[in-house]
Amino acid sequence: MKKIVGLFMSLALVLTLVAPAASTQAKESNDAAKNKNIHVQIVLFDGFDLLDVMGPYEVFAAAGMYSGGAITVELVSAEGKRSVLSGLNGPALEAEAALDPNRPGIIVVPGAAGKPAGNAEDSIPNILMKANGTALPGMMKQAFANKEVTVATVCGGSLLLAMEGLLKDRYAVTNQIGMPALAATGAVPVEARVVEDNPRLVSGGGVTSGLDVALYLVERELGPQIANSVENLFEYEQRGTVWRAEGIAPVDFNKNQTASE
Amino acid sequence: MKKIVGLFMSLALVLTLVAPAASTQAKESNDAAKNKNIHVQIVLFDGFDLLDVMGPYEVFAAAGMYSGGAITVELVSAEGKRSVLSGLNGPALEAEAALDPNRPGIIVVPGAAGKPAGNAEDSIPNILMKANGTALPGMMKQAFANKEVTVATVCGGSLLLAMEGLLKDRYAVTNQIGMPALAATGAVPVEARVVEDNPRLVSGGGVTSGLDVALYLVERELGPQIANSVENLFEYEQRGTVWRAEGIAPVDFNKNQTASE
Repeated sequence: MKKIVGLFMSLALVLTLVAPAASTQAKESNDAAKNKNIHVQIVLFDGFDLLDVMGPYEVFAAAGMYSGGAITVELVSAEGKRSVLSGLNGPALEAEAALDPNRPGIIVVPGAAGKPAGNAEDSIPNILMKANGTALPGMMKQAFANKEVTVATVCGGSLLLAMEGLLKDRYAVTNQIGMPALAATGAVPVEARVVEDNPRLVSGGGVTSGLDVALYLVERELGPQIANSVENLFEYEQRGTVWRAEGIAPVDFNKNQTASE
Repeated sequence: MKKIVGLFMSLALVLTLVAPAASTQAKESNDAAKNKNIHVQIVLFDGFDLLDVMGPYEVFAAAGMYSGGAITVELVSAEGKRSVLSGLNGPALEAEAALDPNRPGIIVVPGAAGKPAGNAEDSIPNILMKANGTALPGMMKQAFANKEVTVATVCGGSLLLAMEGLLKDRYAVTNQIGMPALAATGAVPVEARVVEDNPRLVSGGGVTSGLDVALYLVERELGPQIANSVENLFEYEQRGTVWRAEGIAPVDFNKNQTASE
């Protein structure tokens, strides 16, 4: 077994030696990264969805590893340090600290895991409603008011904020199941995997889009090389164009149907 | 907010009413599923990779929800019920029970999270070597001997087993970084996202391939409708053809280069 571990290590050494040009480039970027310190808080609430949390968590953690610490990530809750149960009787994760809406950086709000509809105790609508009965929406209102904070949502996380009117007139996406409900809150639903509404609100669609939200934010904040390294390690590539309210707007064929005939 | 939750629920009702044909089909399948009870054990060890665990965990949990309980999933460890720290100073997850290699079903072995190379305390090779110093490899040897168990690996999980000679002469894949080390153990590395070596060993490549390993096993064990429901909920689609040693083998152009000239 030792021989195999040895092989592992010498391979890494060879890879380092044969890529001197790339290394020089990487070195320059790393010097620039030294001045960066982006802090990411991922919010846990009772019944949260594990993968909504873990996708972004691991992307940011790996980005931290590859950038020599230019980005850090922690799990938080509105109530402070506590064990928080995930939905569908899933395992608990430990929130390390209280959410600080005044701390510059990124705050990620995940969705809930539960029955996709209905009003059962363990239904997603019910879990989101309960989370909104805590201090969380008030804190998120503060976060939105802070110009040094980017709020990112994954899946039902968009709905959680929208239900409290926090996404009114803002472009956003959520899980396909929740799009009509998102529209009903006064948000402007956009059919895209990731939506950026001005730089300070980035929302994602269903569960696995959390990977894309986080990779986009890593690229935006630390550059493409770090995002690429994480993609290679995870064997995942960003999916979908990040929708933004700029550039040429596409012709709306539903609207112009009669005009064009 | 109540109005929005109401809208959420009535939408679900409408969807149920407008799809009677699909419902009849689904009903028949559900009756068949009643006799199924696939149990999945996902093994935690110190320094495990969170996403390697959470991708499959959530796929199997959602499949359980959609199939009315035809599949169940739990987190286990070689040592029994305990809190297990993930790698890169990540959060802990609670293993609910001891791994039981004699229990029919599926056993998932994840990889490690850490520095991708080197011999530091928190390097992946070192974490895997430490895991192999526990009771885990012995238990996995028992699991391989049990004809009612399918062993699934994600990322470095393949290497963990291979380092102990458990994948000798077997087709398998691991993270791209680990492919030369996998070959050195006597396993037969295959360039695919998911590899099935006879039905009882299914391995996955880098981190996010855990989603594909689990979706493939859900389709294989419970059928395509459940796998499809999970894909829709997660907004993720199975990636890559699952490689199996059957059908026509492609021409090896490296081998036949001189012959064809």
